[in-house]
Amino acid sequence: MKIINNPAKQTWSSLCKRAVINENSLQETVRTILNDVKLNKDKALTKYAQLLDNVSLNSFKVTEEEIAEAKKLVSEELQQAIQLAKSNIETFHNSQKEAPKKITTTRGVTCWRKNVAIEKVGLYIPGGSAPLFSTILMLGVPAKIAGCKEIILCTPPNKEGAINPAILYTASLVGITQIFKAGGAQAIGAMAYGTETIPNVYKILGPGNQFVTKAKELIQQQGVAIDMPAGPSEVLVIADETSNPVFVAADLLSQAEHGADSQAILVTTSDKVAQNVAAEVNKQLEELPRRELAKKAIKNSFTVVLNSSEKCIQFSNEYAPEHLIIASEKASEYVGGIINAGSVFLGNYSCESAGDYASGTNHTLPTNGYAKNYSGVSLDSFVKKITFQEVTKEGITAIGKSIEIMAEAEGLQAHKNAITVRLKELNN
Amino acid sequence: MKIINNPAKQTWSSLCKRAVINENSLQETVRTILNDVKLNKDKALTKYAQLLDNVSLNSFKVTEEEIAEAKKLVSEELQQAIQLAKSNIETFHNSQKEAPKKITTTRGVTCWRKNVAIEKVGLYIPGGSAPLFSTILMLGVPAKIAGCKEIILCTPPNKEGAINPAILYTASLVGITQIFKAGGAQAIGAMAYGTETIPNVYKILGPGNQFVTKAKELIQQQGVAIDMPAGPSEVLVIADETSNPVFVAADLLSQAEHGADSQAILVTTSDKVAQNVAAEVNKQLEELPRRELAKKAIKNSFTVVLNSSEKCIQFSNEYAPEHLIIASEKASEYVGGIINAGSVFLGNYSCESAGDYASGTNHTLPTNGYAKNYSGVSLDSFVKKITFQEVTKEGITAIGKSIEIMAEAEGLQAHKNAITVRLKELNN
Repeated sequence: MKIINNPAKQTWSSLCKRAVINENSLQETVRTILNDVKLNKDKALTKYAQLLDNVSLNSFKVTEEEIAEAKKLVSEELQQAIQLAKSNIETFHNSQKEAPKKITTTRGVTCWRKNVAIEKVGLYIPGGSAPLFSTILMLGVPAKIAGCKEIILCTPPNKEGAINPAILYTASLVGITQIFKAGGAQAIGAMAYGTETIPNVYKILGPGNQFVTKAKELIQQQGVAIDMPAGPSEVLVIADETSNPVFVAADLLSQAEHGADSQAILVTTSDKVAQNVAAEVNKQLEELPRRELAKKAIKNSFTVVLNSSEKCIQFSNEYAPEHLIIASEKASEYVGGIINAGSVFLGNYSCESAGDYASGTNHTLPTNGYAKNYSGVSLDSFVKKITFQEVTKEGITAIGKSIEIMAEAEGLQAHKNAITVRLKELNN
Repeated sequence: MKIINNPAKQTWSSLCKRAVINENSLQETVRTILNDVKLNKDKALTKYAQLLDNVSLNSFKVTEEEIAEAKKLVSEELQQAIQLAKSNIETFHNSQKEAPKKITTTRGVTCWRKNVAIEKVGLYIPGGSAPLFSTILMLGVPAKIAGCKEIILCTPPNKEGAINPAILYTASLVGITQIFKAGGAQAIGAMAYGTETIPNVYKILGPGNQFVTKAKELIQQQGVAIDMPAGPSEVLVIADETSNPVFVAADLLSQAEHGADSQAILVTTSDKVAQNVAAEVNKQLEELPRRELAKKAIKNSFTVVLNSSEKCIQFSNEYAPEHLIIASEKASEYVGGIINAGSVFLGNYSCESAGDYASGTNHTLPTNGYAKNYSGVSLDSFVKKITFQEVTKEGITAIGKSIEIMAEAEGLQAHKNAITVRLKELNN
C-alpha cells in the first residue's frame, strides 16, 4: 500500500476524490431498456432475460414450491446464523420507531408528525458470484417493521432459471410479499412502471451494477423514490499505536475483496503502524480466494500518516467514508469529532464484517463521499413523516392576525382571506 | 367547479393524474447554464443576471449595510408577525431532535444513531411578485436548529439590484450565514459547484420555477442532495355536512391563487356541500386581486361526491395531496385512515394558511403525488443519521461464528477472515 506522509491540507481534497466513471453510452442503453419495459412489459423482460442473462423463463414469479425446496437446501447452521442476524437487525431497527409527539406551539395550536409506511416498495438484489442474502435482511427487516404492505424483490436467476436457495430462504424468512426472477435495468423498470406480472412500487432500494444504478437514477427523475445514489464500497480505518495490525489488515482486505474499484484507506499517526499494516496486508492478501480483485483495489488505496489524531479525524471527515473503523482502545475519544461517515465501528473488536452482517446496524450506506449529505438506510427509509395540525378557535384567534399580515406582505390575498372569514365568524 | 358524482373506482387513478409538463428543450437550456457556471463561475453569474434578470451587478453578496437598511423598511407589525411564526416553527422543529439511544442487540454489541448536521446547505428563494420570506423561516429555522455551519441563501434581485426588505430581514433573523443576489438555474449551479464568491454546498433546498427545478434535478445526479422533487402546489379538502362552505371555498381559493397550474380538489359525501361550496367559490373569486390566476386553477380543479367518508379518504390516499384539509367537526375520526398526504389540517379552524405561515409545521411539502413516497422538509432534512457500533470481546465471541458462516456463504472470504483473526486472538 502506498504510504503518503503528512500531505499538506490543500492536497487532501484531491486525495479524497473518487474515481469518475465515464457513462455517456450507459445512459442511452439504460434509457432504451427502460422504455422497452414500460411499453412491452413482461414481453420485454422475457427478451432481456434471454439476451442478457441467457435464460428462458416461462414465469417470473417464484412459486411456493421453489421456496419450500430452497429451505431444504440451506444448512441448519446457515439458517441459524441468518436468524441471529435478523434478530439483531430487528432489535436495532425497532428502536427507530417514533411515536407521534403532540406539541402545542401556541395555545390552541397542536402539531405532530406521524410515520406512515410507504405502501409499496421494491428491493433489488444482484446476482453474480456472491448471493447477497444479507442485503435482504438489511432492506426487508425495516420494510416489514415500517409496515409496508407490498414488499417485492427482484433478483436475476442463473442460467437454469433458479435463484440461490439462501436468497429464497432469507426472503421468505423476512416476509417478502412476492419474489421475481428479473435482473438488471429491466428489473428496475418493471418495478417502476409495473408489468402484467410485477407490480409497480413507490420506492426502489438495493445495490446493483452500473446498469442498475443508472436505471435507479433515471426512474428517480420520473417520480419513483430510491434509497440513495450509489458508488463503489469503501472503508477508512483510523489506527493508532493501540491498534492490532493483523486486525487492521484483515479489515482493509475485507473491503478490498468487494471489487477492483473499492477503496480501503488507512489513516494513522504512527509510521510504524503504517509499515506493520502494509506488511500484514501483503501477507494476508496471498491467502485470499478473491486476491486478484483485492490486489487491484489495494492498488487504488493508500495510507496517510498525519501528526495528530485530530488531523486523522479531519481527513476522515473530508473523505466522508461509507465505513469508518476507529481501530484504537481509545475509540470513544474520537466520536465527538466525527462529522461525515456512513457507519462507524469503535474499537479493535468492532470490525466492518460485524456491521455487514449481524451487529444490527444497516449495511446499505452512502458511498462516494455521499456521507456528507445522505444517511444510510434505516426505518426512516420506509416511511413518510406526515405532519398534522389542529387549530382551535382559540388557536386561530391567537395566530390569525399574524398570518393575515404575512400573507398580505407576500401578496397572497386569498391566503389572508382564509383567516379573515374565520376571524369574522368568531367575532359574530 | 366541475362536480363529478360517484366516479367508479377504476377512474380514480386518471382523475388523480397531474398535468405533465413537456420539458425536452428545458433540459438542454438548463444544462448549458449549469456548465457555464461550473466553468466561468462569477463571470457567468454576471452574464445571466444581465441577460435574464436585466440587472447589472458589481457584487453578489448582500452587505451588512443592506441588511441594516432593510430592517428599517419592514413595519413593526410585520416584524412581530414573522417573529411569532419563527417561534412556533422553532418549537415544533426543536421537538424533532433525537438524542442517541444506545441499544444492546446482543450482549457486548451496542448500536446507536447520532444525528449530525450537514455542514453546508444552500437555500433558494424565488423572486417575482411575491417575496416568499415565509419559506426562509421554513428552511432556515430547522437548518439552524440542526447546527448546519454554513447556511447560504440565493435569491434574485430586482432590476435595481435590490432584494425585498422582508426577505433580508427574515434571513438575518434566522441566522443565514451569507445572502447572495443570484436567481434561476445559475444560482443552483453556483451553490452546487461554488464560484469565487458563492461557496459550494452539499444540499440545496427551496422552491423555484421550472428552470430552478430542472437545475436541482440535474445537480442531484451529480451528487448534491436536494429537498425533494417539485411540482405545482395543491390542496384536497374533505368536507362533510359539519363543514362551513365559506371556509372551504376560501381554502380552495388560497390554493388556487398560487398559479394557473395549482389544483384545489373538493371531496365530499354531500351533494349539497358540493353545490354550496361551488357557489361560494364563484362569489369569493371575484374579490381576489389574483383572480385571473385563480380562475385558471379552478378550471383545472374539480369536486368529487362519494357515498361514504371511507371512500373520501381512499380517494385522498390515491391522490396523495400535498395539503389535506379535513373540514369536519369529526376530523379526528378520519386520521387513522390517512396514508398519503404531505401535511394534514384537522377541523374547520385549521386552514392551510395556518400551516403555510405560523402553526409551526413545515410548508415545504411533497407535491405531484410524491406524498406517496416522500416526506416534507423537517429537521431530518438537515442532518445525516450516522450509525455507530461498539463490539466488545464478549460481543464478537457471541456473534462471530454466525458472521463467519454468512460471509463464507456469500463467498466473501476476507469478510470471514476479519472475524477469524479476532476469534483466534481471543482463544490464545
